[in-house]
Amino acid sequence: MTHGEYATIERHMLDLMHDGAHDEQHVYRVLFAALDIAVDYDADMDVLIAASLLHDIGREAQFRDESVDHAVVGSEMAYTYLSSLGWPAARAQHAKACIRSHRYRKSEEPESIEAKILFDADKLDVTGALGIARTLAYKGIVAEPFYSVDEAGAVQSGEGDSEPSFFQEYNWKLKNVYEKFYTDKARRLAEGRRQASVDFYENMYAEVKETHVVGKRRLTDILL
Amino acid sequence: MTHGEYATIERHMLDLMHDGAHDEQHVYRVLFAALDIAVDYDADMDVLIAASLLHDIGREAQFRDESVDHAVVGSEMAYTYLSSLGWPAARAQHAKACIRSHRYRKSEEPESIEAKILFDADKLDVTGALGIARTLAYKGIVAEPFYSVDEAGAVQSGEGDSEPSFFQEYNWKLKNVYEKFYTDKARRLAEGRRQASVDFYENMYAEVKETHVVGKRRLTDILL
Repeated sequence: MTHGEYATIERHMLDLMHDGAHDEQHVYRVLFAALDIAVDYDADMDVLIAASLLHDIGREAQFRDESVDHAVVGSEMAYTYLSSLGWPAARAQHAKACIRSHRYRKSEEPESIEAKILFDADKLDVTGALGIARTLAYKGIVAEPFYSVDEAGAVQSGEGDSEPSFFQEYNWKLKNVYEKFYTDKARRLAEGRRQASVDFYENMYAEVKETHVVGKRRLTDILL
Repeated sequence: MTHGEYATIERHMLDLMHDGAHDEQHVYRVLFAALDIAVDYDADMDVLIAASLLHDIGREAQFRDESVDHAVVGSEMAYTYLSSLGWPAARAQHAKACIRSHRYRKSEEPESIEAKILFDADKLDVTGALGIARTLAYKGIVAEPFYSVDEAGAVQSGEGDSEPSFFQEYNWKLKNVYEKFYTDKARRLAEGRRQASVDFYENMYAEVKETHVVGKRRLTDILL
């Protein structure tokens, strides 16, 4: 890919991202991680770069209408766009397939090595401190709490919790992403980040739990 | 304070919090931390409980109009409300003064022991993993990025950064809150949480920096 074509596709991606930097910075991290993983494999770099840059362009459509799957819509948008740049149908189709199968809650398995690398690069951004940071920022955006408190005022760990919260999402998704990788390279990178995520959750849970246990007891002692 | 009066003030607080659990859960943590700190001091518990429950009721006014200081507006709202419950002017005034001086970016120093405890309890929620979580959720809400990237594509640490970001706020506020406490008890509790915050920032910065440095290099090698 030439610098010119890269700049064109990058510009198109930036034009479609309106969330104030979060999605945009995520896209660069996914692209960079994909290029890093790809070193170990014989991948089509043009397809990988284009698919990485465009993998989340369906986000806004999904944000407007929750029933829309951003991977499906985005893959179609990317196909149309790459075709308009003069990409042959087979290559545009290849990039489309990568984008279509990148989702965590996936119905379709990634098939090509490029699709597997994009999937893994995207999932790497769910690992470690970055995965924690993105999940917390999202909880702010959608106004979901950090944790649930039961009727007795006890803070729930999030394990087996049905109410949406940061602790629930940590236990449901963040904690388990390490088993989901297709490439060894990504799995190794993810393992290197795992402890940061575990430590953060455990520290935060301990802080909240201690505050509630001690505080509730004192309140009960004080109130007449 | 009776259970009944507590429930009344709590209900009033909940009626004024509309942000979807974040501010509300913060209020309980501040109340519980305040009760924990207060064990070491001879504090007026009724004033402390009321001021803790009501300390952020001015948030919505500040959210609607940034020129409003939620501590000032909230302190006046609390005075009016506690007077309506039949509190004598001097006690309502005492709670008002506590709320007025609780802000981090403060122009007024907390004077009474109750005001110092409320200030410290509120600042405890800026320490450790909780401080990180609240700042990240807020960055999501106000659509500010996690970090800045300079013109060459290098990720900035946030130190000396003028652009708003999570890394900038960590360096400006989160990292320095440990020096701001009035009570020894709160300072000890804060110290116990400090490492969780430092570790998270350092892990996240390392992850992002590494991803960018490696990825940018590969991209430069690939593009024609």
